[in-house]
Amino acid sequence: MASTLTGKEYSIIRTLEGKLTKDTTTIPVLGPQDVLVRVTHSGVCYTDYELFKHNYPLALGHEGVGVIEAVGSAVTTLNPGERVGGGFHRDSCGHCRQCLTGHDIHCLERTVYGFGDFSNGTFGAYYVGKEGFVHRIPDGMSSEHAAPLQCAGATVYSALVETVKPRDRVGIVGIGGLGHLAIQFAAKMGAEVVVFSTSKDKEGEALGFGASEFVLLAEPEKVGAPVDVLVIAGSKYPDWNKMLNTKILARNGTIVPLAAPTQGPLSLPADRLFWDSYHVHSILVASKAQHDEMLDFAARHSVQPATQLYKFEGAETIETVFKNFESNKVRYRAVLSFE
Amino acid sequence: MASTLTGKEYSIIRTLEGKLTKDTTTIPVLGPQDVLVRVTHSGVCYTDYELFKHNYPLALGHEGVGVIEAVGSAVTTLNPGERVGGGFHRDSCGHCRQCLTGHDIHCLERTVYGFGDFSNGTFGAYYVGKEGFVHRIPDGMSSEHAAPLQCAGATVYSALVETVKPRDRVGIVGIGGLGHLAIQFAAKMGAEVVVFSTSKDKEGEALGFGASEFVLLAEPEKVGAPVDVLVIAGSKYPDWNKMLNTKILARNGTIVPLAAPTQGPLSLPADRLFWDSYHVHSILVASKAQHDEMLDFAARHSVQPATQLYKFEGAETIETVFKNFESNKVRYRAVLSFE
Repeated sequence: MASTLTGKEYSIIRTLEGKLTKDTTTIPVLGPQDVLVRVTHSGVCYTDYELFKHNYPLALGHEGVGVIEAVGSAVTTLNPGERVGGGFHRDSCGHCRQCLTGHDIHCLERTVYGFGDFSNGTFGAYYVGKEGFVHRIPDGMSSEHAAPLQCAGATVYSALVETVKPRDRVGIVGIGGLGHLAIQFAAKMGAEVVVFSTSKDKEGEALGFGASEFVLLAEPEKVGAPVDVLVIAGSKYPDWNKMLNTKILARNGTIVPLAAPTQGPLSLPADRLFWDSYHVHSILVASKAQHDEMLDFAARHSVQPATQLYKFEGAETIETVFKNFESNKVRYRAVLSFE
Repeated sequence: MASTLTGKEYSIIRTLEGKLTKDTTTIPVLGPQDVLVRVTHSGVCYTDYELFKHNYPLALGHEGVGVIEAVGSAVTTLNPGERVGGGFHRDSCGHCRQCLTGHDIHCLERTVYGFGDFSNGTFGAYYVGKEGFVHRIPDGMSSEHAAPLQCAGATVYSALVETVKPRDRVGIVGIGGLGHLAIQFAAKMGAEVVVFSTSKDKEGEALGFGASEFVLLAEPEKVGAPVDVLVIAGSKYPDWNKMLNTKILARNGTIVPLAAPTQGPLSLPADRLFWDSYHVHSILVASKAQHDEMLDFAARHSVQPATQLYKFEGAETIETVFKNFESNKVRYRAVLSFE
């Protein structure tokens, strides 16, 4: 369906041959289920940086929030003027068992950010999403705060809601972009949260986000009591021989590795798994229903990413954020503003 | 409490300094919760052989079945003359959260077979168990069949009942002592069972035990459709880079490694875990309630280990079984008869 905006040119950020480029594209004729979003904010996620570093040709950005400008002819649940977010999980078939049982992120036909989409990212004036894969933002949640929830929040919430019971003690290894959200979500789920961090400097912030205990990663055995779920929210796996100890992780406990998979195999001591019944729960990101649930939960409990706002001026803004990633200066999520 | 049998001498098999020795011990004064069992049958598990090989000083045997001869003063749920089984999980505290929530096998104070008990094993005329840790054998289940269920059955059932849904497809890698029971239990839980085996010779038996599909482990991609749960029931991990493929294991699927932990770390490709949300579920053996449940389930569904019966004559009988382990001749569980 052609909207009044079809054919309008707008800027996006592409990555190609190791460079970031501001480029123009045009608003397409909308497919029946398409939703045209005028992007007001986009999170910049470490994944964007990884994809740039590894030179995936791509329109960057997958934590977009904005206002619907137009919808396709078959869209029934969203209307122009509404605020929505999305950008990582872009499509699933809708008909397979995974889709029909609410596990649409596991659909074999799914489309996710990072693979070959060269003209549609959230680092730009517009983003074309699909009904069901863009999510209404609750009233009272700012767009700046909503943006990082679209990927980081959805990942962390999904991991926790599938593994944590309210009475559990939850260990969070690493207090960064994912970790600071994991602390908040886990605490609001009723769990007692222990942060394991390399840096004593982060203790105050960890407790501020809702942790009730702070332990140096170099001395994990100093934890007050074992945790039931151990979320690896930093960019490196911990020393498993040290962490897989019943004083640190309770028997029948679960490891949740969120860390990026670029660091080689997940190599766990088999004898510890065997004698202490340790489990591993992996997660990519939330399915559609969980994504909506996450936004509602975050709104109800005031789960808020700590953000640094950058006014988007073009490729150089993204370069600045990427440099801040490299020098570890992003506390805790970078957000672009397009307004 | 002294029973009329207290002080009676009987034979057990000890392992010490790399040798098996038939030795005598005496029936002790029973503690309040003790249950004195006259052993009629005992499974010989590969774990017995492993402990012998690694020279743990130990009274061997942990899959005992027999008749209660006497009970301690505080025992209220079992009576002399009843048939019971047990021997791997020997005690737990009864008061911690794990015990109180039916996860007593994860109790930090638990006692399990293999560590330091030099006078009480099931390769002998008597075994002293504790109320709650010896389990009534259902009528109609032979003691010969009940014996291997005390460890192999309890392990397999626990692993499956915690991971398998009736509509699932379950892959069993390795059709041996654990695998042939896993096929039966999974099929009787309603699952569709696929056996992955190195040997085409085992196809007939696999189908006989209840599998509906047989795939050579060298060509796992030939499986008809992906499985949801992949149980590693053999003594080696498969090639994970080959097996962790969405044509073989569905996204959001679970790996259950039952294999002995002597083979080094469980090293899984992190990118596959990340993109396809593969989980790992570890298990030692059933907790008490699950053990009883397993025996009831096996009786209701005629789950029967395939057994080879050996009349117990002393250490040389155990040596014969161990030699048969080495030459891969045990199909599928060895059972000693003491009658």
